[in-house]
Amino acid sequence: MKSFEKISQSRLKSYSKLTEKKYRQSERKFLVEGVRLVEEAMKSDWEVEAIVINSNGFVKEVGELGSWEIGKGVPLFECQGKDFIKLTDTVTSQGIVAVVKMRDHSLENFFGAIPRQSIIVALDDVADPGNVGTIIRTCDWFGVDGVMLNKYTVELYNPKVARATMGGIFHIPIMPEVDLGLMMQDVKKLGFKIITTVLDGGKPLNKFSFPERSLIIFGNEAHGVSKEIEPLADESITINKYGKAESLNVAISCGIILNAARASNI
Amino acid sequence: MKSFEKISQSRLKSYSKLTEKKYRQSERKFLVEGVRLVEEAMKSDWEVEAIVINSNGFVKEVGELGSWEIGKGVPLFECQGKDFIKLTDTVTSQGIVAVVKMRDHSLENFFGAIPRQSIIVALDDVADPGNVGTIIRTCDWFGVDGVMLNKYTVELYNPKVARATMGGIFHIPIMPEVDLGLMMQDVKKLGFKIITTVLDGGKPLNKFSFPERSLIIFGNEAHGVSKEIEPLADESITINKYGKAESLNVAISCGIILNAARASNI
Repeated sequence: MKSFEKISQSRLKSYSKLTEKKYRQSERKFLVEGVRLVEEAMKSDWEVEAIVINSNGFVKEVGELGSWEIGKGVPLFECQGKDFIKLTDTVTSQGIVAVVKMRDHSLENFFGAIPRQSIIVALDDVADPGNVGTIIRTCDWFGVDGVMLNKYTVELYNPKVARATMGGIFHIPIMPEVDLGLMMQDVKKLGFKIITTVLDGGKPLNKFSFPERSLIIFGNEAHGVSKEIEPLADESITINKYGKAESLNVAISCGIILNAARASNI
Repeated sequence: MKSFEKISQSRLKSYSKLTEKKYRQSERKFLVEGVRLVEEAMKSDWEVEAIVINSNGFVKEVGELGSWEIGKGVPLFECQGKDFIKLTDTVTSQGIVAVVKMRDHSLENFFGAIPRQSIIVALDDVADPGNVGTIIRTCDWFGVDGVMLNKYTVELYNPKVARATMGGIFHIPIMPEVDLGLMMQDVKKLGFKIITTVLDGGKPLNKFSFPERSLIIFGNEAHGVSKEIEPLADESITINKYGKAESLNVAISCGIILNAARASNI
């Protein structure tokens, strides 16, 4: 009968380093926490290197992991609670993490299968992990064809980002660390129109007709789309305002705009 | 020349208790933090009892508070950093808080000036302070006529909620601690239609025509609208889905639905 193997101290040490960005980047691996996200990783085509459970946590038996585990051949480890906390950044952990290998979404792969009508979302210096994760979750709901994160957007593999995606990180193509300025030139050649979202002065969203291929850029929470990127836009749009608020949260803006884009049939 | 008065220990103690819900409820006062939110409180018709600054913080002079302070006659206090932290729940505080008196939005006041076409948003057991605050901010953008929070929704005066509203708490009528089941009967008499949002099986949002008076209910992050409330709905709507995500964040759903409601001219 399959069971959990006691984790070695050297393996524990190596995995616990993945809580730091510099080790994630050098090892090209990251951690995802919680039953739901581990399950999403296992069901996806991402490579899971190992699953580690807290032997004092609520998963006690391999069978409890669910059918998604069976037959995948992923090594299963267990450790004590005092060791498990080295792998997690949440206080109320469910006691399960997976070690997942990063994937390279090369430009060619990214654009290889873009349909005639398509939406790409690009993030320009979005700083809050919860916002980035929620935007990816929202993009997953609306089935966008891809998400790009520029170099100054918070790291995709930050555990708070991965958690807020609710699995979206494993569902849609995401290209991190993109130089948006350079990228704009490539996407324009592919027939994409560049659309930025601005607080006021843009075309009103509710009368806007989205191009067949739209790359929609969302900017920093405080400063919006950066000065280098804004002049490259083909169109700027503004969400119609009816009240007093000075701004909308960036993830809320993304949701509203993606719904409007889909409703206009792209 | 007007200046900051050194706060007394008894006043400091009394204000610091307002970081706890039970004292907020008994004293009918709450704290708001940060230059932006204090300014919004001062500019609004809410009653500000006092402003307290950290004398080691970045506001040093009364003049730096901005023109909104002048002539309001609100007492201005200062205290040392070690005392100021008793008034704040943020690590990176801007060094300014205001003590604000709660307001009663009675049913009569709430509905006294409702226009023929109107939108009310009601929250049913929404648990996350960031979600509730962001929903209020979004309602403020779309100029909704009022927001109701049921008894099991997170407390309106929680500092995390107030902060996430970005001032919205002072812009639109909000009625906390509402018994939604009872309320439904009253609002129906006023000609409101009750609309709930469900993950699937509702009328597709993008083909939905909003009634002139719509009360739109958003439910708990994990469980949706409660079993007691759902049967009272006149309509259920679902945001059109194009991808794989299991759900949308509740504040994102609110933004999408309010934009659609406004676009359909209510």
